[in-house]
Amino acid sequence: MMKKIIDPWGSTLIDDYNKLIQDFHLEVFDSKLFPGPNRLMRRGIVFSGIGMKEIANAIKNKKPFYVLSGIMPSGEKIHFGNKMVVEMMSYFQKHGGETYILIADLEAEATRGITLEEAKNRALEFHIPAYIALGLDPKKTTFYFQSENIEVMHAAYKYSKKVTAAQFKALYGSNDPERMFAALTQVGDILYPQFKKRMPGVIPVGPDQCPHILLSRDIVNRIKKENFFLPAATFHKYTPALNGNFKMSKSMPESMIELPEDPKSACKKIMRAISGGRETLEEHRKLGAEVEKDMTFELLKQHLVEEDKELEKIYKAYKSGKMTTGELKKIACEKITKFMIDLKEKIEEAKKEVPKLKFIKS
Amino acid sequence: MMKKIIDPWGSTLIDDYNKLIQDFHLEVFDSKLFPGPNRLMRRGIVFSGIGMKEIANAIKNKKPFYVLSGIMPSGEKIHFGNKMVVEMMSYFQKHGGETYILIADLEAEATRGITLEEAKNRALEFHIPAYIALGLDPKKTTFYFQSENIEVMHAAYKYSKKVTAAQFKALYGSNDPERMFAALTQVGDILYPQFKKRMPGVIPVGPDQCPHILLSRDIVNRIKKENFFLPAATFHKYTPALNGNFKMSKSMPESMIELPEDPKSACKKIMRAISGGRETLEEHRKLGAEVEKDMTFELLKQHLVEEDKELEKIYKAYKSGKMTTGELKKIACEKITKFMIDLKEKIEEAKKEVPKLKFIKS
Repeated sequence: MMKKIIDPWGSTLIDDYNKLIQDFHLEVFDSKLFPGPNRLMRRGIVFSGIGMKEIANAIKNKKPFYVLSGIMPSGEKIHFGNKMVVEMMSYFQKHGGETYILIADLEAEATRGITLEEAKNRALEFHIPAYIALGLDPKKTTFYFQSENIEVMHAAYKYSKKVTAAQFKALYGSNDPERMFAALTQVGDILYPQFKKRMPGVIPVGPDQCPHILLSRDIVNRIKKENFFLPAATFHKYTPALNGNFKMSKSMPESMIELPEDPKSACKKIMRAISGGRETLEEHRKLGAEVEKDMTFELLKQHLVEEDKELEKIYKAYKSGKMTTGELKKIACEKITKFMIDLKEKIEEAKKEVPKLKFIKS
Repeated sequence: MMKKIIDPWGSTLIDDYNKLIQDFHLEVFDSKLFPGPNRLMRRGIVFSGIGMKEIANAIKNKKPFYVLSGIMPSGEKIHFGNKMVVEMMSYFQKHGGETYILIADLEAEATRGITLEEAKNRALEFHIPAYIALGLDPKKTTFYFQSENIEVMHAAYKYSKKVTAAQFKALYGSNDPERMFAALTQVGDILYPQFKKRMPGVIPVGPDQCPHILLSRDIVNRIKKENFFLPAATFHKYTPALNGNFKMSKSMPESMIELPEDPKSACKKIMRAISGGRETLEEHRKLGAEVEKDMTFELLKQHLVEEDKELEKIYKAYKSGKMTTGELKKIACEKITKFMIDLKEKIEEAKKEVPKLKFIKS
C-alpha cells in the first residue's frame, strides 16, 4: 500500500499532495531521519523528498554535501514559498551543507523581459538581502550569477544531447525552446557544485520545481562516467491562498501576502480569509471550528507560530470552539505585524552585508 | 514564372537545386551584381542567395558589412564544402567584409563527443591552418571559440523565447533539445558581429545550413527593437560524390575526396568515378561525351580549373568526342595531385601563423 503523508494538524489540501507523490513516484518525507528537524519538517509542510537518505547519512556521518537554490530576480517582493526555501537552506547550512545560491539572471532576461543588468541590481538590492534576513548565513554561502558562470552554460549545452523532445514533453508538458533552455541551464546549476567535488546535494523546492529535479537525476544517470551523485530534493507544500486555493497567486492579490508587506494590508487580507468558524457563535461553541478548512490557522501553522506547543494550544482551543475565528485572526494579525516589521528591519540590516559578499565567476 | 538556375556547363543535379530554391523561397544568385565574381559565383556553383542585394550594395558603396562562418573542429580532415566556404569568405574579405570565424567547440563537444580541449587543439593544429591555406587572410580575420564567447551564449538563451517548438520542427524536421541548443547558439554566432555594430552580414553556406539562416532572419524580425540587419547568405552546391550521388559522404569513402588527401588515393578514386564517356571509342568519337553526367568534369568545373577559357576548351573537346574519358581523367589527376601537394605545403606554412592569431573572448 502507498505510504501517505500524515499531517498532525490536518488540511483539506493534503489529498493533492498525496496525489503528487503518487504521480511523480516521490518518497514521503521522514523527519525522523534528521537531527533537530525545523518547523517545516516537523509539521509535514515538507511533505516529500527524493534521495534524502543520502543527505541524512551525510549529516549523520559529517560527510560533505551541498544545498543549492536559485533566486529569480524579478519583481519587488518575494513570497512565502521563498521563505520556506530559505528556511530549508538554513537548516542544511547549519548541519554542515556547503551552500550555493545562484541568481537566475539569464532566465529572468529570457522569460521576464528584464535586462541582465536590471536583474543583477534587483538581486543585490532586494532579493539577496531578503534571503539573508530570512536566515541565510551570507558568510557561509557561495553566490553566483548564471550569466557569469560559463561552466554552467557549457554544461547546459552538453546535457542537451542527453534528453529528447519527448522526455521534455512528458516532464514539463511542453518542449518549447524557452522551457528547454531554462531547464537545461537549471540542471547545470543543480549539478554545478559537483563539477569540482563529487558529493550529495539537496535542492529544497516547491512541487512546481519537481520536473527540474527529475530531469537532473535523469541526466546524471545518462552521464555515468562523470560519477555525479544524484541530486536529492525536499518538497514543501505551497502556502495556500487566503481564499482557500491550493497556492497563493499574484493574479489574486487579495488572497496573497507578499514579503515584505505592509502589516495593515496583511491583516486586512487575513480578516477576509476563508475560515473554519461556524455560522453562529452558539454553533461554534457547540461544534468547534473546522480547523482543516481555516486558512488563517494554516498560516499560523506554516509560518507564524514557531513552537509546536503553542500551536497545539491554539489548535485545541479553536477545534473545541473555545476560541472564536475573530480571536484566531487577532492572533494571526499580531504575529504577522511583528513578523513584517522584523523582516523589514532585517532586510535593511542585511543590505549592509551585500558589498562584502563574494560572487564567483567561472 | 519561377526564375531558375542557369548552369552554363550543365549537370544532371541542377533540378534538385531548383527544387530547393522553390521549397525555401530563396533567390536565384545573380553574379552580375558583384564585382569580379569568383569561379564559384561565375559558374552557378553558388546557385542561390538570400538578402544578397544588401551585400552587393555595401560592396558597391564601400559601406561596412561582415562575412562569418564557423569551423566544426572534429575529424582530421576537411572537405570540398569547407573549401567553397573559405573561397566565398575570401571573396567577401577582399571586397571589404569584416571577417569572423568561430570555432564551434561547444557543438563539437555536445554532438561529436570530444572535449572542449580536444576541439580547441584540433582547430589550432589543423582546421584553422587549413582555412588559411585555402585563402583566408588571418590578419584580417577575427577568431573566437564558442565556449569563450559569453555574449553568444547569453544571446542563445534570450532567443530561445522567440521561437516555438513547432517552428523548429518545421525548419529542422526535429525539435530535439540538442538541435535547438545548437541552432540557437548558431543564431547567436550569426548575429554576433552586429552586437557591437549594426551592419549587413553574409554567411556562405551549403544548402544543409539553410534552416540556420532562415531561423536567424526570423529571430531578427522578432527582436525589431534591436535593429539588427537581416543576415544574408550565399548557398553553394555540394560537390557531388564520384559515384554520381548528390553529395560526397564519409559513409562512402571511395566516392569522397578529403582535404588534404594523398594524391595517389585521390587519383585512384577519380579513375573509378562515374563518367559520361560512351561504351566504345567509336561511339564516343561519333556522339561525344555526356558531360552533364561526368563526375570528373564536375570536379574540374567546381574545383580544379580556375580559368573559364580552359574549362570551356575541355568541355568542348569532351562534348564533341575529341577528348576521351581517359584523357579527361588524366587531366583531373594531374591537377588534383598538384592541388594536394600545394595544399599540404600551405597548411604547414599556415601553422606558423597560428601563434600570432588573436582570439577574442567576451
